[in-house]
Amino acid sequence: VHAGKRRGLNVLRSPAAGSSPLAIVCGGGMFPLAVADEVSRGGRVVFLIGIRGISNSAIERHPHSWLRMGAFGRMIEDARRAGARDILFVGGLTRPADWRELRPDARLLLLLPKLVRAFRGGDDRLLTALAEAVESAGLTVRGVHEVAPGLLIPAGPLGTYTPDPAALADAQLGLRVLDALSPHDVGQGLVVAGGRVLAVEAAEGTDLMLARVAELRSGGKVRVSGRGGVFVKAPKLGQDRRMDTPAIGPATVARVSAAGLAGIAVAAAEVMAVDAETMVADADHAGIFIAGLAGVQP
Amino acid sequence: VHAGKRRGLNVLRSPAAGSSPLAIVCGGGMFPLAVADEVSRGGRVVFLIGIRGISNSAIERHPHSWLRMGAFGRMIEDARRAGARDILFVGGLTRPADWRELRPDARLLLLLPKLVRAFRGGDDRLLTALAEAVESAGLTVRGVHEVAPGLLIPAGPLGTYTPDPAALADAQLGLRVLDALSPHDVGQGLVVAGGRVLAVEAAEGTDLMLARVAELRSGGKVRVSGRGGVFVKAPKLGQDRRMDTPAIGPATVARVSAAGLAGIAVAAAEVMAVDAETMVADADHAGIFIAGLAGVQP
Repeated sequence: VHAGKRRGLNVLRSPAAGSSPLAIVCGGGMFPLAVADEVSRGGRVVFLIGIRGISNSAIERHPHSWLRMGAFGRMIEDARRAGARDILFVGGLTRPADWRELRPDARLLLLLPKLVRAFRGGDDRLLTALAEAVESAGLTVRGVHEVAPGLLIPAGPLGTYTPDPAALADAQLGLRVLDALSPHDVGQGLVVAGGRVLAVEAAEGTDLMLARVAELRSGGKVRVSGRGGVFVKAPKLGQDRRMDTPAIGPATVARVSAAGLAGIAVAAAEVMAVDAETMVADADHAGIFIAGLAGVQP
Repeated sequence: VHAGKRRGLNVLRSPAAGSSPLAIVCGGGMFPLAVADEVSRGGRVVFLIGIRGISNSAIERHPHSWLRMGAFGRMIEDARRAGARDILFVGGLTRPADWRELRPDARLLLLLPKLVRAFRGGDDRLLTALAEAVESAGLTVRGVHEVAPGLLIPAGPLGTYTPDPAALADAQLGLRVLDALSPHDVGQGLVVAGGRVLAVEAAEGTDLMLARVAELRSGGKVRVSGRGGVFVKAPKLGQDRRMDTPAIGPATVARVSAAGLAGIAVAAAEVMAVDAETMVADADHAGIFIAGLAGVQP
């Protein structure tokens, strides 16, 4: 609590009992806003840090600042000035093709050799290295599961529809394959139908993967009679839970429906729901199940 | 040898010393013809069995017959009538969406319950079940590695260009990920660039996966400076080597080039080259390496 006052700053509302303001570094999309809204509803003060060219301008409905990609020192400063001791990273970041695009500030320059080494090792290691750098600057990196656990999808079905035994078997196969991929920093999602893996998500992301399944079906390359198959999503096992929480929302339901799938299965308490009310209503309307799976069956 | 005479048939050329004629059941594409040409060049008589709507009509340059998908009994009969004791399956088959599309003949009907069970278990188990059925009818199922080992890509570079250490590291990572996927009957190919898996092949097949990588790069979603990244191809570990030999050819080189990759790495002696001469000339022209990797480094 004292952190909000120590520097005498632009945070006007007092933080919820026992928690300092939370700084939220916003990647792309609407997920950062969903988290900010939820944390804010819980009574904790939030301060959003937007990255120019990446974050959605809707973050401006909360106290915020904007900085350019690469302004690592300023990010730490802004968070501190807002009185935050905790910081959260959420939403998609485009990986730079080239470190020069980052225009690193002095502080980031010092970190660069370490980050470049981590960069070669895939997203997980890059994010972990970034988290370590932030923590060595005196802030604690938090995950969505810590600051907004209510956003995580619990075990069991969310809406009206439930997976049938065939869909459950497909979902379990999907989780096993995601587990097998995890050590290699690949894939938070895939599609299984009739015991067969139809698509695995890598750099293209979830949306393009689901669009591919829709095309494979409409083109007759993959033929499944009726609505069938499951979109399965889970965090990578080695993934730093603080740095990259997978999420689904109404747009996911629309794409799953377009791909002709029967439903969505996620690792319970590991994947967050954005705009859950709309998402569940849309799923019910489309006849699609959304279910949290409590664990992988061998 | 006696098999060719036992039934007094339409095989006129005498088989090479020690080997009966080889029946080749032709899936789609030009791979069946490449195998038939190679076996034939080696002096062994071939008899090609085409499947209407799937096989390329170019198979007609060899002794052949045509049958419809599902005519399992006739396939066995045709192979026997040609004097074959050995049979080879090669080239892509479209999986039927529905068993009714197969119009199974009497012999296949008897096998259906077993095949339907295997179908649920993915391609590998389906193919293994099919191989067992063919063998119980008295034919020996052969693989490309047995009848045309000269088509398999050996360890080392094939053309002028060789992978640099970064490309080798990407290739090794690719083989490790393919190994991890193998038990789940997924993926014979993927693309790795800069230590990161960009794309994993599932039901869409190699061509669409490589087209996706080209799009991801041209769209700026994945940025790799200059020509970089490796297309990695290997058979699934659990894969019945007799039933489904992965292959690359000139078309693969064209797609790898369009995707901006540095080269192609395959599991040595496990992947076949179709029209190797043209393929290597094209790769040399495009500045792309093609290399067989002798084993996965942990």
